[in-house]
Amino acid sequence: MDVELKKKRRSGGRAGHAARRGPAIVTQAPWHVPVNPDRPTEPMPQEGIEAIHDTAMRVLEEIGVAFLNPEACRILAEAGCRVDGEIVYMGRDFVMEMLSHAPSEFTMTPRNPAHQVRVGGNHVLFGNVSSPPNYWDLELGRKIPGQRTHYADFLRLSQYFNCIHFIGGYPVEPVDLHPSIRHLDAVYDKLTLTDKVPHAYALGTERIEDGMEMVRLAAGLTEDEFRASPHMFTNINSTSPLKHDYPMLDGWMRMARRGQALIVSPFTLAGAMAPVTMVGAVAQSLAEGLSAIALAQYVRPGTPCVFGTFTSNVDMKSGAPAFGTPEYMRATQITGQMCRFYGLPMRSSGACAANVPDGQAMWETSNSLWAGVQSGTHLIYHAAGWLEGGLIASPEKFVMDCEVLSQIQRYFDPSLWRTEPGDLAFEAMAEVRQNGHFFGIQHTQDRFATAFWQPSVSEWQNFEGWQAKGGMWTAERAHVMFKAIMEEFTPPPMPDANLAALTEFTERRKAEGGAPTDF
Amino acid sequence: MDVELKKKRRSGGRAGHAARRGPAIVTQAPWHVPVNPDRPTEPMPQEGIEAIHDTAMRVLEEIGVAFLNPEACRILAEAGCRVDGEIVYMGRDFVMEMLSHAPSEFTMTPRNPAHQVRVGGNHVLFGNVSSPPNYWDLELGRKIPGQRTHYADFLRLSQYFNCIHFIGGYPVEPVDLHPSIRHLDAVYDKLTLTDKVPHAYALGTERIEDGMEMVRLAAGLTEDEFRASPHMFTNINSTSPLKHDYPMLDGWMRMARRGQALIVSPFTLAGAMAPVTMVGAVAQSLAEGLSAIALAQYVRPGTPCVFGTFTSNVDMKSGAPAFGTPEYMRATQITGQMCRFYGLPMRSSGACAANVPDGQAMWETSNSLWAGVQSGTHLIYHAAGWLEGGLIASPEKFVMDCEVLSQIQRYFDPSLWRTEPGDLAFEAMAEVRQNGHFFGIQHTQDRFATAFWQPSVSEWQNFEGWQAKGGMWTAERAHVMFKAIMEEFTPPPMPDANLAALTEFTERRKAEGGAPTDF
Repeated sequence: MDVELKKKRRSGGRAGHAARRGPAIVTQAPWHVPVNPDRPTEPMPQEGIEAIHDTAMRVLEEIGVAFLNPEACRILAEAGCRVDGEIVYMGRDFVMEMLSHAPSEFTMTPRNPAHQVRVGGNHVLFGNVSSPPNYWDLELGRKIPGQRTHYADFLRLSQYFNCIHFIGGYPVEPVDLHPSIRHLDAVYDKLTLTDKVPHAYALGTERIEDGMEMVRLAAGLTEDEFRASPHMFTNINSTSPLKHDYPMLDGWMRMARRGQALIVSPFTLAGAMAPVTMVGAVAQSLAEGLSAIALAQYVRPGTPCVFGTFTSNVDMKSGAPAFGTPEYMRATQITGQMCRFYGLPMRSSGACAANVPDGQAMWETSNSLWAGVQSGTHLIYHAAGWLEGGLIASPEKFVMDCEVLSQIQRYFDPSLWRTEPGDLAFEAMAEVRQNGHFFGIQHTQDRFATAFWQPSVSEWQNFEGWQAKGGMWTAERAHVMFKAIMEEFTPPPMPDANLAALTEFTERRKAEGGAPTDF
Repeated sequence: MDVELKKKRRSGGRAGHAARRGPAIVTQAPWHVPVNPDRPTEPMPQEGIEAIHDTAMRVLEEIGVAFLNPEACRILAEAGCRVDGEIVYMGRDFVMEMLSHAPSEFTMTPRNPAHQVRVGGNHVLFGNVSSPPNYWDLELGRKIPGQRTHYADFLRLSQYFNCIHFIGGYPVEPVDLHPSIRHLDAVYDKLTLTDKVPHAYALGTERIEDGMEMVRLAAGLTEDEFRASPHMFTNINSTSPLKHDYPMLDGWMRMARRGQALIVSPFTLAGAMAPVTMVGAVAQSLAEGLSAIALAQYVRPGTPCVFGTFTSNVDMKSGAPAFGTPEYMRATQITGQMCRFYGLPMRSSGACAANVPDGQAMWETSNSLWAGVQSGTHLIYHAAGWLEGGLIASPEKFVMDCEVLSQIQRYFDPSLWRTEPGDLAFEAMAEVRQNGHFFGIQHTQDRFATAFWQPSVSEWQNFEGWQAKGGMWTAERAHVMFKAIMEEFTPPPMPDANLAALTEFTERRKAEGGAPTDF
């Protein structure tokens, strides 16, 4: 086996070289905002929806949610909620009134307007892996803390692949950047290496305000233009069970006031930080998420808010989190039913527990992604590059996931089930009859170039053909493709004035010391 | 990387040894016939269904299907079809009348009645990979022609895993058995190593009649008991475009006459043996399949018949077949809509183009399997062990696929979305409130043992824990598990009298020379 693998590695180098000579490394469909034509998979009857809603409301009314932020508590008390220390009790009438202000659809426009995205309706958007502290690649063969160079590589991948629609949190944490100025260099890299809708972390006042300011400058917008519609988003996680912490609530309210988009994703692991039953865990996640959305709507009615599901289960033997399980899939679909009940756009994830980009990684990720599609999700976070329950980002996994994403996006194409006369192909069958084949006939010639999804990292050659090219397994081919994309990559253009303003701001804020690190 | 892999191999040995000491190698749900609770995914509107139906009927009426079997032609002429040489033209009234005799649901009972299965309704059954000529495993590291020893190992896996409900064709072709007597030894192994519903090949008179007789003897049935209901099935493939060959039609009619179950699966690769459009390829597959089912219903009205989809696309650059693609998924779902229109049970497949059990293998297979589930399929063929477009059977892939199958079968469990008060867990949340966790509380203790799907070959430990155990990738862990299952396996019991009759028949027919090999 070792000899075989040495051979594979050598051939990997050759294949990489060959790939670089070609016109394009990856065969891609053009950028588009995918539309999911399928009716969602809905396991629960209407009574189930109402039972979960009632439970979530009872949690908000009777158990309450801790808001570890005095300003948020003051605002919610002013709004008429009962506040006892840090515990806020919200009546269902208040919650439902606040939710009535939240738009069911909205648009986010990044610095490149061609990459504008619509959130809600039947649209589905996919984003890169976000926030792993560690990096792994096949050449390195081990797990190390993320560096700025890895961080930038993932941004390049996120920009390169048309199946990626938004840039989530740091695709890997650049821990070689000092925490006080990390957000400045990291957002700078994000805004110069990509031009898709960006995320900024709600981790204290300076980080979120700097993030908003940098997005504004990179797009050359006035403050009024910036506030007029969302150009970016943040994502907060509640601290389950039933707590929102200080810096996230601070960033949440600041983003709302400046008209940017919000996602709240309770990390409700059934059996650990949430009830062991999936519907119980979903009810808790709704209580946590809806309470944050109610706050945002009170602060600024009409703020675009997305409910994020991150409900999964643990291994009850070890307590280890699991992803892409049957329980995860059904929780995602159930959450989809609840989001439609509340009229809120939804976020889910492409997650797995696997430690390396192997078979398990792909069945778990496929399960997660398809559950997202079936649930009627609008934003799929972590859709490319995630390993080890979110603790590792891997470029090979990123390339492999993008192959799956591009298939999912092609799967949405209504031409696949169109039944115009030419599609039904009666004349083609009458021409070929019981003999011969369809390769050469005009009906095929007219359509073959666009008839089928085109593979990139997939290998469809037979065993002998594959072996002759080095017999590389998928992760090895993905590594070669990753390296080739890095060589080919060109950053998207930015007007000089915007770049100058962005650079000046970044340098100035770094000189000022950035953000406190003791929050 | 090589050092790492050597370490992995050594640890693999240790892990295998440890696994053998445990009470059970694989954590399995008990045998059951899964019920799919989901509404199928239906891309096409009603007009689409009618357009494909009309096209399939026009093909049968105007283009015709070649029946390369004089007896079949004579029977169909007698039935009123226009027969011109080998081309049979069927009117839609005749086809629909014949289809009205075909049951929408039926039961198959193998020699162990506890493994009886229901075909149709919302039931979904899964079967092993069938008919690859070649074998590959990780230890061997190369592709070789299948041997009887490999064949028997796959039968053991098929019997061992409760997520496998029927035993399809040879899981790998035992080419070391002479073709004239291969079917006798192979069916003997199948009937002694497994007790689930078996398949026999419709490859000429002797093979199918021997197969039926051996199934009858192994179950200790009289001829009348055997004929009274299905105890086995065969699967035929049309020779696309629009041809049925001699031995398959012969076996098809013989199985119908003795009351056994039939599956017809046209291998309609869009762009090669079928139109380049997916709906055109589906229309052609229906014309091929329905014509065979009409014949079976005329021969013996009420014969249990299943329509099998094997519609996929080719790589238009190389002509290589592809599986688990977006086009494959939609064709499977469309075929599901057509099968419900005709009231016929449906078969689909768990297929992939990948050559080794890696990431691509699992995303392609996941796509195929989920498309089967979404289409409302009743029998999923090739659900475990398939590689290289069906040219390779791999035990590692078998173990990995069974992990996915067991997840799919758990996914069907309605307890996952039940909303009884205990499921909603309000009291549990009231107990934990904003602090602590749910691990220790009574609500969790009462439920944790059965709350979640249990992994087997999946690794949910974190990177460090996984690395400490040898850092094995999924295929390596699957190899260890395969070896351990082989050591643990015990064949299912068979009454002495049945075994004696089966053995005597097998030996006698082998002594007689078996079957001709020049068909």
